[in-house]
Amino acid sequence: MRALAIDVGGTKIYNTIVDETGKIVAEVEKQPTPKTFDEIREVLSEIVKKHEDKADVIAFATAGAVNNENTGVIGSTGNIAAGYPDMDFVNLSSKKVFVENDANAAAWAEHILGASKGCANSVMLTLGTGVGGGIIVDNKLMKGKSGAAGEMHFKLYRDKRRKCTCGAYDCFEAYASGTGLMTTAADITNVPNVTTYDVISEVNAVLEQTKALQSEKTKTERLTLGLSSKYVEAFLRWQDDILIGCIGLADLFDPDVIVLSGSMAEFVDVEYIQKELNKEIVTTFTEVKKASTGNYSGMIGAALLAMGIGL
Amino acid sequence: MRALAIDVGGTKIYNTIVDETGKIVAEVEKQPTPKTFDEIREVLSEIVKKHEDKADVIAFATAGAVNNENTGVIGSTGNIAAGYPDMDFVNLSSKKVFVENDANAAAWAEHILGASKGCANSVMLTLGTGVGGGIIVDNKLMKGKSGAAGEMHFKLYRDKRRKCTCGAYDCFEAYASGTGLMTTAADITNVPNVTTYDVISEVNAVLEQTKALQSEKTKTERLTLGLSSKYVEAFLRWQDDILIGCIGLADLFDPDVIVLSGSMAEFVDVEYIQKELNKEIVTTFTEVKKASTGNYSGMIGAALLAMGIGL
Repeated sequence: MRALAIDVGGTKIYNTIVDETGKIVAEVEKQPTPKTFDEIREVLSEIVKKHEDKADVIAFATAGAVNNENTGVIGSTGNIAAGYPDMDFVNLSSKKVFVENDANAAAWAEHILGASKGCANSVMLTLGTGVGGGIIVDNKLMKGKSGAAGEMHFKLYRDKRRKCTCGAYDCFEAYASGTGLMTTAADITNVPNVTTYDVISEVNAVLEQTKALQSEKTKTERLTLGLSSKYVEAFLRWQDDILIGCIGLADLFDPDVIVLSGSMAEFVDVEYIQKELNKEIVTTFTEVKKASTGNYSGMIGAALLAMGIGL
Repeated sequence: MRALAIDVGGTKIYNTIVDETGKIVAEVEKQPTPKTFDEIREVLSEIVKKHEDKADVIAFATAGAVNNENTGVIGSTGNIAAGYPDMDFVNLSSKKVFVENDANAAAWAEHILGASKGCANSVMLTLGTGVGGGIIVDNKLMKGKSGAAGEMHFKLYRDKRRKCTCGAYDCFEAYASGTGLMTTAADITNVPNVTTYDVISEVNAVLEQTKALQSEKTKTERLTLGLSSKYVEAFLRWQDDILIGCIGLADLFDPDVIVLSGSMAEFVDVEYIQKELNKEIVTTFTEVKKASTGNYSGMIGAALLAMGIGL
């Protein structure tokens, strides 16, 4: 069995073919996400027409919350064309079409093949420009009443310090995301246009300078030696924001593992998060790991779900 | 079918008989919880001996996280005798013995008979001296890897303001509980020995004074007219702490309903919580309701679970 897998993100659309073991068996094609609804529909329609004969099912991993029928997006997503929730995915092909939220799909890929394989209960955080969440309870994706469960908008403060893209204040996403790191760095350094690249460059410089210590000190301990840099201070505060969120999630879900994925996850010291988290939680020992199914985990997970693998 | 239901709390032990419709069909007996492990075991053993012939199963609702086998308590509970996790519930009777956490059991009673009846997904908060949680996902109690899921120790601040009974700082429980209300009131009034009774008396006085306005103003709007009282200020801050927690839970779980139960829930303006919550969340409309199965919901829920009702 094979799935045509299509990942619709805020900036890029990817597609490929995935087999039922989760292996990518064709070239991964990539193009920018158009700005309008009609153009997006046209691009998706062309991808389907070009490749559907190679697949048994069509699997979409998309930005935005996906309904419990796995047929479309509910509500607006902020970073994709207005009207996108009206997209009629099902009629793009005469074959079976299955749609899932990208973070949920990626969590399923980890559950079947990756860092949370063999775990009945897991929480995955996708740390990118924003923060996505995919939660697996008792070997099933937790979807909630409408399909929107797993939104990481619980608050880190209750006294209105930082506005989130959702319009509310102090959501976890506003701190733990790449955007959150930039804002924290701007707050601490008073450099308004600081980028994550600036911060990560400085972090990497400190890690390079302290390389000789790596057998005796952890990555985070080495970074605390570089705290004279405001960039490093911002990075460590960002990492602690992620820790604070993970503590709450571990107490709520008592998961086997919390998986960190997404472009920002590679910078996080997961050993530090795991150690500090387990000092605080009132539930039982919880692992913290990096995701292992790679950049195309959304497509792989959506494909596996569409083919019924693990359900 | 009938269950001998026994509720083991930090201060009281209750017992009664519950039938398979969730009806209490015998007198509710009550006694103080003894201070030592051996005395507690003796009390439980006597209750079982006295009443087990009237029941098909023995159902315990207890303080503390209960394992996934529903046979005993894991970890320490703080407000009950040391060694309590070693209690061998199963051997107290030759009949089937079933154990569940009291908040989980109460959530099941609401799910089968009460405020969340007919809802596949719900979150229940038990607001008492502490805060308990019982979460139902897809018509099943969410237990996590060890049975401890649903602990309400996510943080409301990240800058260490108030110590929680769990040893960490700024957990939801430390703010939203009755103890949390007292601490908030002490902080605001600078009266160190202020009680929840003092606060609630003042709140009731303001509600009485503003009774004429009740057709045009909500309970919370009337209370804001009494904000010259520091006690009322503390109450409204406490209510907003509950709101902040509920927003995070609604975004994480996308539940049909959030149910507030426990001795402190009766003072909460749930219409206010529901209205403000739905202005902020990124998921879909979520109801907020008070629990409706009464003071013995823990025993009722444990009995229903022990008899397999709804499973």
